[in-house]
Amino acid sequence: MSALEREVRSSAEQAGSAPRVARADSEPRSVDARLLRRLLRYFGDPPFGFVLWTGERIATAPADLIAQVHIADRATLLGLMRDLRMRFGDAYSEGRIDIEGDLVGLLEAAYRGGSATRKGGALRRIVALLRKPHSNSLTGSRDNIHHHYDIGNEFYKLWLGKTMAYTCAYYPTPDASLDEAQVAKMDHVCRKLRLRAGESVVEAGCGWGTLGLHMARHYGVKVRAFNISHEQIVYARERALAEGLAGQVEYVEDDYRNIHGGYDAFVSVGMLEHVGVDHYEELGDVVYRSIGEHGRGLIHTIGRNRPAPLHPWIERRIFPGAQPPALSEMMQIFEPWELSVLDVENLRLHYARTLRHWLDLYETSVECVRHMFDERFVRMWRLYLAGSIAAFTTGTLQLFQVLFAPKSNNQVPWTRAHLY
Amino acid sequence: MSALEREVRSSAEQAGSAPRVARADSEPRSVDARLLRRLLRYFGDPPFGFVLWTGERIATAPADLIAQVHIADRATLLGLMRDLRMRFGDAYSEGRIDIEGDLVGLLEAAYRGGSATRKGGALRRIVALLRKPHSNSLTGSRDNIHHHYDIGNEFYKLWLGKTMAYTCAYYPTPDASLDEAQVAKMDHVCRKLRLRAGESVVEAGCGWGTLGLHMARHYGVKVRAFNISHEQIVYARERALAEGLAGQVEYVEDDYRNIHGGYDAFVSVGMLEHVGVDHYEELGDVVYRSIGEHGRGLIHTIGRNRPAPLHPWIERRIFPGAQPPALSEMMQIFEPWELSVLDVENLRLHYARTLRHWLDLYETSVECVRHMFDERFVRMWRLYLAGSIAAFTTGTLQLFQVLFAPKSNNQVPWTRAHLY
Repeated sequence: MSALEREVRSSAEQAGSAPRVARADSEPRSVDARLLRRLLRYFGDPPFGFVLWTGERIATAPADLIAQVHIADRATLLGLMRDLRMRFGDAYSEGRIDIEGDLVGLLEAAYRGGSATRKGGALRRIVALLRKPHSNSLTGSRDNIHHHYDIGNEFYKLWLGKTMAYTCAYYPTPDASLDEAQVAKMDHVCRKLRLRAGESVVEAGCGWGTLGLHMARHYGVKVRAFNISHEQIVYARERALAEGLAGQVEYVEDDYRNIHGGYDAFVSVGMLEHVGVDHYEELGDVVYRSIGEHGRGLIHTIGRNRPAPLHPWIERRIFPGAQPPALSEMMQIFEPWELSVLDVENLRLHYARTLRHWLDLYETSVECVRHMFDERFVRMWRLYLAGSIAAFTTGTLQLFQVLFAPKSNNQVPWTRAHLY
Repeated sequence: MSALEREVRSSAEQAGSAPRVARADSEPRSVDARLLRRLLRYFGDPPFGFVLWTGERIATAPADLIAQVHIADRATLLGLMRDLRMRFGDAYSEGRIDIEGDLVGLLEAAYRGGSATRKGGALRRIVALLRKPHSNSLTGSRDNIHHHYDIGNEFYKLWLGKTMAYTCAYYPTPDASLDEAQVAKMDHVCRKLRLRAGESVVEAGCGWGTLGLHMARHYGVKVRAFNISHEQIVYARERALAEGLAGQVEYVEDDYRNIHGGYDAFVSVGMLEHVGVDHYEELGDVVYRSIGEHGRGLIHTIGRNRPAPLHPWIERRIFPGAQPPALSEMMQIFEPWELSVLDVENLRLHYARTLRHWLDLYETSVECVRHMFDERFVRMWRLYLAGSIAAFTTGTLQLFQVLFAPKSNNQVPWTRAHLY
């Protein structure tokens, strides 16, 4: 626990257990406070405030506050003013910013205030074009994926639940458990694809192998699953052996661009975020040559309402090279090959729920995470998970499942009733 | 009946009632025949052939033929060679081309052969950009809509079925009747929008008013419905009065661009085809100002797998100004306003079935149509309906229902189970 965190907790305890933090009504006095007041105005007077290292409190919200941002020193404040989105995350990770109150609620308010719906201007588009994320060339992708997915299977086991599925779950009802919802997601995908026993499936980006095993066991298909995360592939192969499915599911440590051969279905759950829009035509080529004129496919991905780069702190610290696409961008996969989009489902609130379950498990295991890594890592990943919840609840991020088939394939479901 | 048609029927009768037409195996002798042979090769040796005015028969298919195209004279043949897509339709309408056998099957084979899936090249894109359909300015749209929809309500009554819905129906099961499927389509749309009694709906492009009345009667909503077809608006108002719903549904003879005011839901079924991609941002503006931060909307439209102009004969003779969009183009409606796409459903095979029902009713009433118009009109509209079936069965055209909501609206259905 940082010194600041200790101080904050102790003030919070002194303040008793009031669920909401008192807000400061008085005009701010210092220059620092006036700066922060302007920042709050920019965010549309959100229901959070700031507490300076001097104890001075700044808020502009007309109602009670749900959170206070404690700033440790003037250097941190000036950093925030220079590059808010990068410095907030870094300073929080370093313990030089602390949050008293509702972290997710604060981030939701910031997302809502910072991006109130307004028509995308030319400037925004130019900025989006200039901000290049990490490269997703063959070697670039390997580095990017290694950064996130190869930090230790034991770490992910702490908070992903039994299925080890690290993608948006599907909650048939809002009160389903995380594990139930992950299984329901896999069935939802398999039903959309109408998998039949004896068919062949190629999976691009297979995580720890969960979906591949599920398809093989419950739908009787033969799976070739690709992934460039070494740790994940090793784990997936062990699972396949242990569960007696190694003959049915082959895990290949290779890039999606090296997929060859023909299959009845193509599936990719949670890989497209790492492909990069520049490579969508290449991916479309892989899809088309995999399923030919008679197959079908499904891509499940985080997306956006319009083209925009990922939050810079997330792209730099958590997911290098990641780029969630707008639907218009995704169409670059399908249109060159005249693949027909059959069904798009947006599950963003399911991802908010999934992340909430992950964050709860993460907090339960936080001592263990601190032991595996350090306090900075603990805080960084807490902020990533909490910020992701906020991004999905505020509609800053979307979750698209896109089902498609070649234009000439008339063996498509007549309605979607079989899914329900 | 044209002279050629008479001749064809009489030859067909002489040939007996064999379901399939015999094919010519011999090499063609004349220059004309050699030209047509090249054309058949371009179409991938389809299961149809040609019969010249001399009686010479040309075919390249390895199997039995499903249809023969009779060509009346050399001028017609040369016209086909100069501008196949325009001249085929015109010559068929004029009776200088006749089809012996399966008209829809022939058009399907032509679509399949003429556009075998290949990657869209730069040339194709440039051609698509250069081909400008009729303008959809405020006055242009009025002329375009008048051309198609104001040719007489009595004509449309002959073959649209009881509902007078002139858009793709939704067949819960493939054996549903046309009228059942049109009602099911309206319920499908209303359930997707989750309409609740007392809410307000704005409808852009309301045809003969069917959906507006259905929403008012069965979902208890108040509807303002816009249309620039004078004939349709007059008809719709009479229906509302006769059915005692004039207080709940207001039919406005005006352009969608003149929609003002706030509503709980925006709905548009079968208008987007007439908007033109250049006007999608304007339409998005109308949508966004109609539903604000808390509504939802649905657009139902014919679409394409990738941007391409409408078939030139259809655009010139049947639907001036029409332009079915690819999904990437549709996103120009939503992305500037960060509207979230919640659900896309592709119902192209349902449109093929709807059109088959319309064509059957049309053929039953063909004497009446001939009496209202003339033989040329009869043939032109037969070709349009048959060609549309072929476009949907071959995946040349798609039918998209797109449900959307503002990014900040979390009052969206948790799953789609309520639709089934």
